[in-house]
Amino acid sequence: MKLYTYFRSSAAFRVRIALNLKRIAYEPVFVHLAKGEHRKPDYARVNPQGLVPTLELDDGKRLAQSLAIIEWLDERYPAPRLVPSDAFERSRVRSIAYLIACEIHPLNNLRVLQHLKRVLGQSEEGINAWYRHWVADGLAKLEAELARPGTGKFSHGDAPSLADCCLVPQIFNAKRYDCDLAPYPTTMRVFEACMKLEAFDRAQPSKQPDAE
Amino acid sequence: MKLYTYFRSSAAFRVRIALNLKRIAYEPVFVHLAKGEHRKPDYARVNPQGLVPTLELDDGKRLAQSLAIIEWLDERYPAPRLVPSDAFERSRVRSIAYLIACEIHPLNNLRVLQHLKRVLGQSEEGINAWYRHWVADGLAKLEAELARPGTGKFSHGDAPSLADCCLVPQIFNAKRYDCDLAPYPTTMRVFEACMKLEAFDRAQPSKQPDAE
Repeated sequence: MKLYTYFRSSAAFRVRIALNLKRIAYEPVFVHLAKGEHRKPDYARVNPQGLVPTLELDDGKRLAQSLAIIEWLDERYPAPRLVPSDAFERSRVRSIAYLIACEIHPLNNLRVLQHLKRVLGQSEEGINAWYRHWVADGLAKLEAELARPGTGKFSHGDAPSLADCCLVPQIFNAKRYDCDLAPYPTTMRVFEACMKLEAFDRAQPSKQPDAE
Repeated sequence: MKLYTYFRSSAAFRVRIALNLKRIAYEPVFVHLAKGEHRKPDYARVNPQGLVPTLELDDGKRLAQSLAIIEWLDERYPAPRLVPSDAFERSRVRSIAYLIACEIHPLNNLRVLQHLKRVLGQSEEGINAWYRHWVADGLAKLEAELARPGTGKFSHGDAPSLADCCLVPQIFNAKRYDCDLAPYPTTMRVFEACMKLEAFDRAQPSKQPDAE
Protein backbone atom coordinates (compact mmCIF):
# COMPACT_ATOMS: atom_id res chain seq x y z
CA MET A 1 0.00 0.00 0.00
CA LYS A 2 0.94 3.65 -0.44
CA LEU A 3 0.91 6.33 2.23
CA TYR A 4 0.66 9.94 1.13
CA THR A 5 2.66 11.60 3.86
CA TYR A 6 4.62 14.66 4.93
CA PHE A 7 7.38 14.30 7.48
CA ARG A 8 6.05 17.03 9.76
CA SER A 9 2.33 16.19 9.54
CA SER A 10 1.09 14.94 12.93
CA ALA A 11 -1.76 13.09 11.27
CA ALA A 12 0.63 11.24 8.92
CA PHE A 13 2.92 10.56 11.90
CA ARG A 14 0.01 8.81 13.68
CA VAL A 15 -0.52 6.49 10.72
CA ARG A 16 3.21 5.82 10.30
CA ILE A 17 3.30 4.65 13.94
CA ALA A 18 0.29 2.37 13.43
CA LEU A 19 1.77 0.85 10.26
CA ASN A 20 5.08 0.27 12.03
CA LEU A 21 3.42 -1.28 15.10
CA LYS A 22 1.61 -3.69 12.79
CA ARG A 23 4.78 -4.30 10.74
CA ILE A 24 3.04 -3.34 7.51
CA ALA A 25 5.39 -2.25 4.73
CA TYR A 26 4.23 0.76 2.71
CA GLU A 27 5.47 2.96 -0.07
CA PRO A 28 5.60 6.61 0.98
CA VAL A 29 4.42 9.29 -1.45
CA PHE A 30 5.55 12.71 -0.30
CA VAL A 31 3.17 15.68 -0.28
CA HIS A 32 4.92 18.88 0.69
CA LEU A 33 2.39 20.70 2.89
CA ALA A 34 4.51 23.81 3.43
CA LYS A 35 4.71 24.22 -0.38
CA GLY A 36 0.94 23.69 -0.64
CA GLU A 37 1.16 20.50 -2.71
CA HIS A 38 -1.97 19.19 -0.95
CA ARG A 39 -3.99 22.01 -2.51
CA LYS A 40 -3.11 21.09 -6.10
CA PRO A 41 -5.61 19.40 -8.47
CA ASP A 42 -3.47 16.25 -8.71
CA TYR A 43 -3.82 15.68 -4.99
CA ALA A 44 -7.53 16.57 -4.99
CA ARG A 45 -7.99 13.52 -7.21
CA VAL A 46 -6.27 11.41 -4.58
CA ASN A 47 -8.03 12.95 -1.59
CA PRO A 48 -10.98 15.31 -2.17
CA GLN A 49 -10.59 16.57 1.42
CA GLY A 50 -7.16 17.88 0.37
CA LEU A 51 -5.56 16.63 3.56
CA VAL A 52 -2.63 14.37 4.43
CA PRO A 53 -2.43 11.44 5.04
CA THR A 54 -4.18 9.24 2.48
CA LEU A 55 -3.72 5.49 2.52
CA GLU A 56 -4.00 3.92 -0.92
CA LEU A 57 -4.73 0.19 -0.87
CA ASP A 58 -3.41 -2.29 -3.39
CA ASP A 59 -6.85 -2.43 -5.05
CA GLY A 60 -6.70 1.34 -5.61
CA LYS A 61 -9.19 2.26 -2.86
CA ARG A 62 -8.16 5.23 -0.81
CA LEU A 63 -8.79 6.02 2.83
CA ALA A 64 -8.76 9.52 4.34
CA GLN A 65 -8.39 10.90 7.88
CA SER A 66 -5.69 9.44 10.12
CA LEU A 67 -8.02 8.02 12.78
CA ALA A 68 -10.30 6.40 10.20
CA ILE A 69 -7.21 4.89 8.55
CA ILE A 70 -5.94 3.47 11.85
CA GLU A 71 -9.36 2.01 12.71
CA TRP A 72 -9.44 0.37 9.25
CA LEU A 73 -5.92 -1.00 9.73
CA ASP A 74 -6.92 -2.36 13.13
CA GLU A 75 -9.93 -4.15 11.67
CA ARG A 76 -8.00 -5.58 8.70
CA TYR A 77 -4.72 -6.34 10.50
CA PRO A 78 -5.72 -6.92 14.13
CA ALA A 79 -2.28 -7.91 15.47
CA PRO A 80 -1.35 -6.10 17.60
CA ARG A 81 -4.68 -4.53 18.57
CA LEU A 82 -4.56 -0.74 18.73
CA VAL A 83 -8.22 -0.45 19.73
CA PRO A 84 -8.99 -2.85 22.60
CA SER A 85 -11.59 -5.57 22.12
CA ASP A 86 -13.54 -4.68 25.29
CA ALA A 87 -16.25 -2.11 24.49
CA PHE A 88 -15.63 0.16 27.50
CA GLU A 89 -11.87 0.08 26.96
CA ARG A 90 -12.36 0.83 23.26
CA SER A 91 -14.38 3.84 24.24
CA ARG A 92 -11.69 5.13 26.58
CA VAL A 93 -8.90 4.68 24.05
CA ARG A 94 -10.94 6.51 21.44
CA SER A 95 -11.82 9.28 23.88
CA ILE A 96 -8.12 9.91 24.53
CA ALA A 97 -7.35 9.87 20.80
CA TYR A 98 -10.20 12.30 20.10
CA LEU A 99 -9.18 14.57 22.96
CA ILE A 100 -5.88 15.06 21.14
CA ALA A 101 -7.18 14.97 17.57
CA CYS A 102 -10.29 17.12 18.11
CA GLU A 103 -9.31 19.44 20.95
CA ILE A 104 -5.56 20.11 20.74
CA HIS A 105 -4.10 19.46 17.32
CA PRO A 106 -6.67 21.33 15.15
CA LEU A 107 -5.86 24.64 16.82
CA ASN A 108 -2.18 24.35 16.10
CA ASN A 109 -1.89 22.96 12.62
CA LEU A 110 -0.07 24.71 9.82
CA ARG A 111 -3.02 26.38 8.13
CA VAL A 112 -4.22 27.89 11.41
CA LEU A 113 -0.79 29.30 12.22
CA GLN A 114 -0.55 30.70 8.68
CA HIS A 115 -3.99 32.33 9.09
CA LEU A 116 -2.99 33.90 12.41
CA LYS A 117 0.02 35.46 10.67
CA ARG A 118 -1.47 36.47 7.32
CA VAL A 119 -5.00 37.46 8.27
CA LEU A 120 -4.83 38.38 11.95
CA GLY A 121 -1.36 39.93 11.61
CA GLN A 122 0.04 38.04 14.58
CA SER A 123 3.79 38.26 15.24
CA GLU A 124 5.93 35.18 15.68
CA GLU A 125 5.66 35.76 19.43
CA GLY A 126 1.87 35.98 19.22
CA ILE A 127 1.71 32.76 17.24
CA ASN A 128 3.96 30.98 19.71
CA ALA A 129 1.77 32.19 22.59
CA TRP A 130 -1.33 30.88 20.80
CA TYR A 131 0.38 27.54 20.23
CA ARG A 132 1.48 27.17 23.82
CA HIS A 133 -1.89 28.25 25.19
CA TRP A 134 -3.75 25.47 23.39
CA VAL A 135 -1.10 22.88 24.13
CA ALA A 136 -1.28 23.75 27.83
CA ASP A 137 -5.09 23.76 27.80
CA GLY A 138 -5.25 20.40 26.04
CA LEU A 139 -2.43 18.63 27.85
CA ALA A 140 -3.95 19.58 31.21
CA LYS A 141 -7.12 17.75 30.11
CA LEU A 142 -5.04 14.82 28.86
CA GLU A 143 -3.06 14.63 32.09
CA ALA A 144 -6.33 14.55 34.08
CA GLU A 145 -7.67 11.83 31.81
CA LEU A 146 -4.51 9.75 32.21
CA ALA A 147 -4.89 9.95 36.00
CA ARG A 148 -8.00 7.75 35.68
CA PRO A 149 -7.97 4.01 36.21
CA GLY A 150 -7.00 2.20 33.02
CA THR A 151 -3.74 3.99 32.34
CA GLY A 152 -0.78 1.64 32.56
CA LYS A 153 2.63 1.74 31.03
CA PHE A 154 0.88 3.38 28.06
CA SER A 155 -2.17 5.67 27.78
CA HIS A 156 -4.43 2.70 28.29
CA GLY A 157 -3.03 -0.54 29.66
CA ASP A 158 0.42 -1.91 29.07
CA ALA A 159 0.44 -2.00 25.28
CA PRO A 160 0.46 0.87 22.81
CA SER A 161 -2.91 1.86 21.37
CA LEU A 162 -4.59 4.34 19.06
CA ALA A 163 -4.34 6.82 21.95
CA ASP A 164 -0.54 6.60 21.94
CA CYS A 165 -0.46 7.00 18.14
CA CYS A 166 -1.99 10.43 18.79
CA LEU A 167 -0.14 11.33 22.00
CA VAL A 168 3.38 11.00 20.61
CA PRO A 169 3.03 13.36 17.60
CA GLN A 170 1.33 15.90 19.86
CA ILE A 171 4.29 15.87 22.25
CA PHE A 172 6.73 16.21 19.33
CA ASN A 173 4.85 19.35 18.33
CA ALA A 174 4.83 20.69 21.86
CA LYS A 175 8.61 20.19 22.11
CA ARG A 176 9.15 21.91 18.77
CA TYR A 177 7.41 24.99 20.17
CA ASP A 178 9.28 24.79 23.49
CA CYS A 179 6.12 24.23 25.51
CA ASP A 180 6.63 23.61 29.23
CA LEU A 181 5.91 19.91 29.69
CA ALA A 182 6.75 19.67 33.40
CA PRO A 183 3.07 19.89 34.49
CA TYR A 184 2.25 16.64 32.65
CA PRO A 185 4.33 13.88 34.25
CA THR A 186 2.04 10.99 33.35
CA THR A 187 1.73 12.13 29.76
CA MET A 188 5.52 12.43 29.52
CA ARG A 189 6.06 9.04 31.17
CA VAL A 190 3.83 7.49 28.50
CA PHE A 191 5.63 9.46 25.78
CA GLU A 192 9.01 8.16 26.95
CA ALA A 193 7.71 4.58 27.08
CA CYS A 194 6.47 4.90 23.50
CA MET A 195 9.72 6.37 22.23
CA LYS A 196 11.61 3.35 23.49
CA LEU A 197 9.75 1.31 20.88
CA GLU A 198 11.26 1.11 17.41
CA ALA A 199 7.83 1.56 15.78
CA PHE A 200 7.44 5.03 17.30
CA ASP A 201 11.06 6.04 16.90
CA ARG A 202 11.21 5.14 13.21
CA ALA A 203 8.00 7.10 12.50
CA GLN A 204 9.30 10.43 13.81
CA PRO A 205 9.61 13.40 11.45
CA SER A 206 13.41 13.64 11.40
CA LYS A 207 13.73 10.01 10.31
CA GLN A 208 11.52 10.35 7.23
CA PRO A 209 13.07 10.44 3.75
CA ASP A 210 11.39 13.80 3.05
CA ALA A 211 12.68 15.43 6.27
CA GLU A 212 14.38 18.77 5.78
CA MET B 1 -28.59 6.42 31.21
CA LYS B 2 -27.73 10.05 31.82
CA LEU B 3 -26.42 12.50 29.25
CA TYR B 4 -24.52 15.53 30.51
CA THR B 5 -25.47 18.04 27.87
CA TYR B 6 -25.76 21.72 26.94
CA PHE B 7 -28.35 22.80 24.41
CA ARG B 8 -25.86 24.67 22.23
CA SER B 9 -22.98 22.17 22.39
CA SER B 10 -22.42 20.65 18.94
CA ALA B 11 -20.80 17.61 20.49
CA ALA B 12 -23.80 17.00 22.78
CA PHE B 13 -26.12 17.60 19.81
CA ARG B 14 -24.35 14.77 17.92
CA VAL B 15 -24.99 12.35 20.77
CA ARG B 16 -28.61 13.48 21.20
CA ILE B 17 -29.19 12.65 17.52
CA ALA B 18 -27.61 9.21 17.91
CA LEU B 19 -29.66 8.43 21.02
CA ASN B 20 -32.84 9.53 19.26
CA LEU B 21 -32.05 7.51 16.11
CA LYS B 22 -31.62 4.45 18.31
CA ARG B 23 -34.73 5.31 20.36
CA ILE B 24 -32.77 5.20 23.60
CA ALA B 25 -34.36 7.14 26.44
CA TYR B 26 -31.96 9.17 28.57
CA GLU B 27 -32.05 11.56 31.47
CA PRO B 28 -30.44 14.90 30.56
CA VAL B 29 -28.18 16.61 33.09
CA PHE B 30 -27.55 20.21 32.10
CA VAL B 31 -24.06 21.70 32.20
CA HIS B 32 -24.09 25.40 31.36
CA LEU B 33 -20.98 25.91 29.22
CA ALA B 34 -21.38 29.66 28.82
CA LYS B 35 -21.42 29.96 32.64
CA GLY B 36 -18.33 27.72 32.86
CA GLU B 37 -20.05 24.92 34.79
CA HIS B 38 -17.88 22.38 32.94
CA ARG B 39 -14.78 23.83 34.60
CA LYS B 40 -16.05 23.29 38.16
CA PRO B 41 -14.65 20.54 40.42
CA ASP B 42 -18.01 18.74 40.55
CA TYR B 43 -17.94 18.23 36.82
CA ALA B 44 -14.24 17.29 36.82
CA ARG B 45 -15.28 14.29 38.90
CA VAL B 46 -17.77 13.33 36.20
CA ASN B 47 -15.45 13.99 33.26
CA PRO B 48 -11.75 14.68 33.90
CA GLN B 49 -11.47 16.13 30.39
CA GLY B 50 -13.89 18.85 31.52
CA LEU B 51 -15.86 18.61 28.29
CA VAL B 52 -19.49 18.06 27.37
CA PRO B 53 -21.03 15.56 26.63
CA THR B 54 -20.56 12.71 29.08
CA LEU B 55 -22.71 9.61 28.87
CA GLU B 56 -23.25 7.94 32.25
CA LEU B 57 -24.34 4.32 32.02
CA ASP B 58 -26.70 2.64 34.47
CA ASP B 59 -23.74 0.84 36.07
CA GLY B 60 -22.10 4.21 36.78
CA LYS B 61 -19.46 3.98 34.06
CA ARG B 62 -18.95 7.18 32.15
CA LEU B 63 -17.99 7.72 28.53
CA ALA B 64 -16.37 10.89 27.19
CA GLN B 65 -15.99 12.43 23.72
CA SER B 66 -19.04 12.50 21.45
CA LEU B 67 -17.62 10.27 18.71
CA ALA B 68 -16.40 7.66 21.17
CA ILE B 69 -19.85 7.71 22.79
CA ILE B 70 -21.60 7.19 19.46
CA GLU B 71 -19.26 4.34 18.50
CA TRP B 72 -20.00 2.72 21.88
CA LEU B 73 -23.75 3.17 21.39
CA ASP B 74 -23.46 1.65 17.93
CA GLU B 75 -21.65 -1.40 19.28
CA ARG B 76 -24.06 -1.87 22.20
CA TYR B 77 -27.30 -0.94 20.41
CA PRO B 78 -26.64 -1.76 16.76
CA ALA B 79 -30.13 -0.97 15.40
CA PRO B 80 -30.08 1.15 13.36
CA ARG B 81 -26.40 1.00 12.43
CA LEU B 82 -24.73 4.42 12.43
CA VAL B 83 -21.34 3.01 11.40
CA PRO B 84 -21.74 0.63 8.41
CA SER B 85 -20.74 -3.00 8.75
CA ASP B 86 -18.55 -2.98 5.61
CA ALA B 87 -14.97 -2.01 6.47
CA PHE B 88 -14.42 0.40 3.59
CA GLU B 89 -17.78 2.07 4.15
CA ARG B 90 -17.03 2.34 7.88
CA SER B 91 -13.84 4.10 7.01
CA ARG B 92 -15.58 6.60 4.74
CA VAL B 93 -18.29 7.39 7.29
CA ARG B 94 -15.65 7.94 9.95
CA SER B 95 -13.55 10.08 7.62
CA ILE B 96 -16.53 12.39 7.05
CA ALA B 97 -17.26 12.56 10.77
CA TYR B 98 -13.62 13.34 11.55
CA LEU B 99 -13.42 15.95 8.80
CA ILE B 100 -16.13 17.84 10.67
CA ALA B 101 -15.05 16.99 14.21
CA CYS B 102 -11.29 17.47 13.73
CA GLU B 103 -11.04 20.11 11.00
CA ILE B 104 -14.04 22.43 11.28
CA HIS B 105 -15.67 22.39 14.69
CA PRO B 106 -12.55 22.75 16.91
CA LEU B 107 -11.69 26.12 15.40
CA ASN B 108 -15.10 27.55 16.12
CA ASN B 109 -16.03 26.31 19.53
CA LEU B 110 -16.84 28.58 22.43
CA ARG B 111 -13.47 28.60 24.17
CA VAL B 112 -11.68 29.53 20.94
CA LEU B 113 -14.04 32.42 20.24
CA GLN B 114 -13.63 33.60 23.84
CA HIS B 115 -9.83 33.45 23.46
CA LEU B 116 -9.95 35.46 20.21
CA LYS B 117 -11.90 38.14 22.05
CA ARG B 118 -10.14 38.21 25.42
CA VAL B 119 -6.54 37.48 24.47
CA LEU B 120 -6.23 38.52 20.83
CA GLY B 121 -8.57 41.48 21.28
CA GLN B 122 -10.67 40.60 18.24
CA SER B 123 -13.86 42.59 17.66
CA GLU B 124 -17.22 40.89 17.09
CA GLU B 125 -16.65 41.46 13.39
CA GLY B 126 -13.20 39.85 13.55
CA ILE B 127 -14.59 36.86 15.40
CA ASN B 128 -17.38 36.43 12.86
CA ALA B 129 -14.84 36.60 10.02
CA TRP B 130 -12.74 33.90 11.71
CA TYR B 131 -15.81 31.75 12.17
CA ARG B 132 -16.93 32.10 8.57
CA HIS B 133 -13.42 31.54 7.22
CA TRP B 134 -13.09 28.14 8.88
CA VAL B 135 -16.65 27.12 8.08
CA ALA B 136 -16.05 27.97 4.39
CA ASP B 137 -12.67 26.18 4.39
CA GLY B 138 -14.13 23.07 6.00
CA LEU B 139 -17.44 22.91 4.17
CA ALA B 140 -15.61 23.18 0.82
CA LYS B 141 -13.68 20.03 1.81
CA LEU B 142 -16.91 18.36 2.97
CA GLU B 143 -18.72 19.25 -0.26
CA ALA B 144 -15.83 17.75 -2.28
CA GLU B 145 -15.95 14.62 -0.14
CA LEU B 146 -19.73 14.28 -0.60
CA ALA B 147 -19.25 14.44 -4.39
CA ARG B 148 -17.52 11.04 -4.18
CA PRO B 149 -19.29 7.76 -4.87
CA GLY B 150 -21.02 6.48 -1.75
CA THR B 151 -23.06 9.55 -0.93
CA GLY B 152 -26.78 8.88 -1.25
CA LYS B 153 -29.78 10.49 0.34
CA PHE B 154 -27.50 11.00 3.34
CA SER B 155 -23.73 11.59 3.68
CA HIS B 156 -23.11 7.92 3.01
CA GLY B 157 -25.86 5.78 1.52
CA ASP B 158 -29.56 6.14 2.10
CA ALA B 159 -29.66 5.92 5.88
CA PRO B 160 -28.36 8.36 8.48
CA SER B 161 -24.93 7.60 9.92
CA LEU B 162 -22.30 8.90 12.31
CA ALA B 163 -21.34 11.33 9.54
CA ASP B 164 -24.80 12.92 9.58
CA CYS B 165 -24.73 13.14 13.40
CA CYS B 166 -21.75 15.48 12.87
CA LEU B 167 -22.94 17.28 9.72
CA VAL B 168 -26.21 18.57 11.14
CA PRO B 169 -24.82 20.36 14.24
CA GLN B 170 -22.10 21.92 12.07
CA ILE B 171 -24.72 23.38 9.72
CA PHE B 172 -26.74 24.68 12.67
CA ASN B 173 -23.61 26.53 13.78
CA ALA B 174 -22.94 27.87 10.30
CA LYS B 175 -26.50 29.19 10.08
CA ARG B 176 -26.21 30.82 13.48
CA TYR B 177 -23.21 32.79 12.21
CA ASP B 178 -24.94 33.64 8.90
CA CYS B 179 -22.39 31.74 6.82
CA ASP B 180 -23.11 31.59 3.09
CA LEU B 181 -24.19 28.01 2.46
CA ALA B 182 -25.01 28.35 -1.25
CA PRO B 183 -21.64 26.87 -2.35
CA TYR B 184 -22.46 23.55 -0.65
CA PRO B 185 -25.58 22.15 -2.37
CA THR B 186 -24.91 18.48 -1.61
CA THR B 187 -24.13 19.21 2.02
CA MET B 188 -27.34 21.21 2.31
CA ARG B 189 -29.41 18.54 0.54
CA VAL B 190 -28.18 16.02 3.12
CA PHE B 191 -28.87 18.49 5.93
CA GLU B 192 -32.46 18.96 4.74
CA ALA B 193 -32.98 15.21 4.44
CA CYS B 194 -31.77 14.76 8.02
CA MET B 195 -33.96 17.52 9.39
CA LYS B 196 -37.06 15.79 8.03
CA LEU B 197 -36.37 13.01 10.52
CA GLU B 198 -37.85 13.40 13.98
CA ALA B 199 -34.61 12.11 15.60
CA PHE B 200 -32.62 15.06 14.24
CA ASP B 201 -35.37 17.62 14.70
CA ARG B 202 -35.94 16.75 18.35
CA ALA B 203 -32.20 16.95 19.11
CA GLN B 204 -31.77 20.54 17.96
CA PRO B 205 -30.68 23.21 20.43
CA SER B 206 -33.92 25.21 20.55
CA LYS B 207 -35.94 22.11 21.49
CA GLN B 208 -33.84 21.24 24.55
CA PRO B 209 -35.21 21.89 28.05
CA ASP B 210 -32.17 24.06 28.86
CA ALA B 211 -32.52 26.23 25.73
CA GLU B 212 -32.44 29.95 26.38
